[in-house]
Amino acid sequence: MPNDPTPETNGRSPNVQLGALHGVRVVDLTQFEAGTSCTLTLAWLGAEVIKVEEPTRGEQGRGASTDKKGVDSQYFMLLNANKKSVTANLKTDKGRAILRGLIEKADVFAENFAPGVIERLGFGYDVVREINPRIIYVSVKGFGEDSPYKNYLAFDMIAQATGGAMSITGEPDGRPIKPGPTIGDTGTGLHAAIGVLAALYQRQFTGEGQLIRCAMQECVINYGRISYAAQYLWGHAAPRLGNQSIMGTNSPSEAYPCKGGGPNDYCYIYTSRANQQHWERILKLMGREDLIGDPRFDSPEERFKNRHVVDEMLSAWTKQYDKLEVMRRLGEQGIPAGAVMDTMELSNDPDLNRREIFVTVKHPVRGDFKMPGWPVKMTGSKVPITAAPLLGADTDAVYRELLGFSAEELAKLREEKVI
Amino acid sequence: MPNDPTPETNGRSPNVQLGALHGVRVVDLTQFEAGTSCTLTLAWLGAEVIKVEEPTRGEQGRGASTDKKGVDSQYFMLLNANKKSVTANLKTDKGRAILRGLIEKADVFAENFAPGVIERLGFGYDVVREINPRIIYVSVKGFGEDSPYKNYLAFDMIAQATGGAMSITGEPDGRPIKPGPTIGDTGTGLHAAIGVLAALYQRQFTGEGQLIRCAMQECVINYGRISYAAQYLWGHAAPRLGNQSIMGTNSPSEAYPCKGGGPNDYCYIYTSRANQQHWERILKLMGREDLIGDPRFDSPEERFKNRHVVDEMLSAWTKQYDKLEVMRRLGEQGIPAGAVMDTMELSNDPDLNRREIFVTVKHPVRGDFKMPGWPVKMTGSKVPITAAPLLGADTDAVYRELLGFSAEELAKLREEKVI
Repeated sequence: MPNDPTPETNGRSPNVQLGALHGVRVVDLTQFEAGTSCTLTLAWLGAEVIKVEEPTRGEQGRGASTDKKGVDSQYFMLLNANKKSVTANLKTDKGRAILRGLIEKADVFAENFAPGVIERLGFGYDVVREINPRIIYVSVKGFGEDSPYKNYLAFDMIAQATGGAMSITGEPDGRPIKPGPTIGDTGTGLHAAIGVLAALYQRQFTGEGQLIRCAMQECVINYGRISYAAQYLWGHAAPRLGNQSIMGTNSPSEAYPCKGGGPNDYCYIYTSRANQQHWERILKLMGREDLIGDPRFDSPEERFKNRHVVDEMLSAWTKQYDKLEVMRRLGEQGIPAGAVMDTMELSNDPDLNRREIFVTVKHPVRGDFKMPGWPVKMTGSKVPITAAPLLGADTDAVYRELLGFSAEELAKLREEKVI
Repeated sequence: MPNDPTPETNGRSPNVQLGALHGVRVVDLTQFEAGTSCTLTLAWLGAEVIKVEEPTRGEQGRGASTDKKGVDSQYFMLLNANKKSVTANLKTDKGRAILRGLIEKADVFAENFAPGVIERLGFGYDVVREINPRIIYVSVKGFGEDSPYKNYLAFDMIAQATGGAMSITGEPDGRPIKPGPTIGDTGTGLHAAIGVLAALYQRQFTGEGQLIRCAMQECVINYGRISYAAQYLWGHAAPRLGNQSIMGTNSPSEAYPCKGGGPNDYCYIYTSRANQQHWERILKLMGREDLIGDPRFDSPEERFKNRHVVDEMLSAWTKQYDKLEVMRRLGEQGIPAGAVMDTMELSNDPDLNRREIFVTVKHPVRGDFKMPGWPVKMTGSKVPITAAPLLGADTDAVYRELLGFSAEELAKLREEKVI
């Protein structure tokens, strides 16, 4: 860090732009994605995030999906940028003493172990608060703490199933489909980060930390909020509607096939029920001014009734052009339209790279690694993105600086397999 | 508010539990969902959120999807709980003066108008910062501020298409499917809330506000982050994989059909590649201990190769029981499993209602209204949830208290159609 934090200014000077969370220290026991995405968010905002890992294999995400045995997975690298890594064997007394030392100097403690594990390790909230009453303790689980499912294991897909996301995704006559974005995992991690940030703000007035709990099932429900309006409208559980809007009453509201015929050669075209002009602009663009005022299409209700005619007409037009051309022609006329972009197109997009929506970091083993960066742009907070740390990369530096360990002590702890 | 905020304690007393953001005032010009979900989050955390609306129809979301003309839509009610509503016609000088007065007394300013609109109204960031340099100004758009698409309109589905979510959702041989959860809208609003919270924390040290920008396309990319690991693994754009995990290398990792045969009678069953025990527990539960050690299934790689055999075996078993029974039997044995729950099942779930994941508020026109609550549980911050305000419900109270208007002045402004 460029400056030592002091209580008054937290190390800030008007001449140096720091991250919003400069001076906030996070003791990070998270694993896989639902917890690591929370601490990743805090790291992107400038917090000092210290991953505390088991000394031999490290956090489970390192090896879980790797293509090269012994090399950290890309999955791990995507979730642990900008963090530090230290090791501590929490099954030893000395390892637990180290963790206690870190907790004393931290603002935030984060974990998402399987139910009961953190308590068995001896670091439940009551214990941690005793060590440091100012600490904000964030705990991510699959299900709520007094849910009938509270002891069940959960991963992203379990949360997407039990949180309703799958029931509202898929073709109308098809089976439930899991959304590709990991809203059960990263979606929950972002909620957890919101809790931490709110508690950090609150602490400046109360002087006290608190416990924050997020359950993956429950956070997925929050992303599906609008489907409860659909449930009111339809009088039964919100249905799957293919590519229709969630209320299921718009037309056009569909991904239309474009030239090329590849798996993602589609462009979504939408008209808001609040704005009849969208539709008239489409007709003008397609050279069908003759249909302006046609009673079959002249209100959102009528257009929806005749949506098969609308879809046929639009498809015939969109198939003439590639998806980006369709998007451009519609977008320039003030019609909501978006090409279905795939991950390769996005990560190669020069604009998104220039804007640091994708960033390339240097990893000590894998070399250049391109990954999504932090999408929230703040004029007063900018944090460079660095690669995920190798296991224990910061053990010596952190333990010297924060815990005052000497080189001899570190060597001994290493010999004893504590670190 | 129970106490007047003061600079020292922000109105806090050790005896009264307040929301984490107690004393934070938000001037809210957001509409539809991507912006309103940001300010809803702040309201749930205890901020005073004042919606400033056009005096005759109000924010567009009120009428856009309503089933009863003149009555606020459920869509609107889901996104505007815990907020206040005041009216001001920003096309009049007096209306703009009112907004300036509110900005002077606010901590946060939020907007998600179509590109260029807020500047045309005369309330771009430069103007607002001039009025109040401490203000945190959050602006949500479809695309980045210097993107080639920056002037295009966007709605949830446009962001889901252009942010990659549709390309990774759907059947392997099917077309791209839009995830039901509104990650383009609410997903972006949560990112925007993170930016505001981080800036509020930072302001205590810098004394200054800042500009926060979120683009819907770019926030959707963040939810699809893991698919970039899949892209590395596969060497091409991340594919659609039905219900497989995003890396596409697990078995079992599927929604299996259960007794009943309804559209959501499925249970997702997953085994982590990091934990071979999950599979052995499944075999024991199904009474197939004889297959423990069978080389076809004895590693994640082999199981994935033989996934069709695995799927057939599991389906035959799951079809005997209803989805909750399947979930219970597996969950109790430490196997990750989740029933596909629909919105009706979730909103009727007694546990989720007791935990206030669903809350019932009283709306002055619609009466009792059940809606998802705030899923992040904080021991130090609790805010009761109240129904979305009718248009202008708080005009008189807010303008008297904050701007010092008299009853006569309010009557005159009303007569002049300013409020």
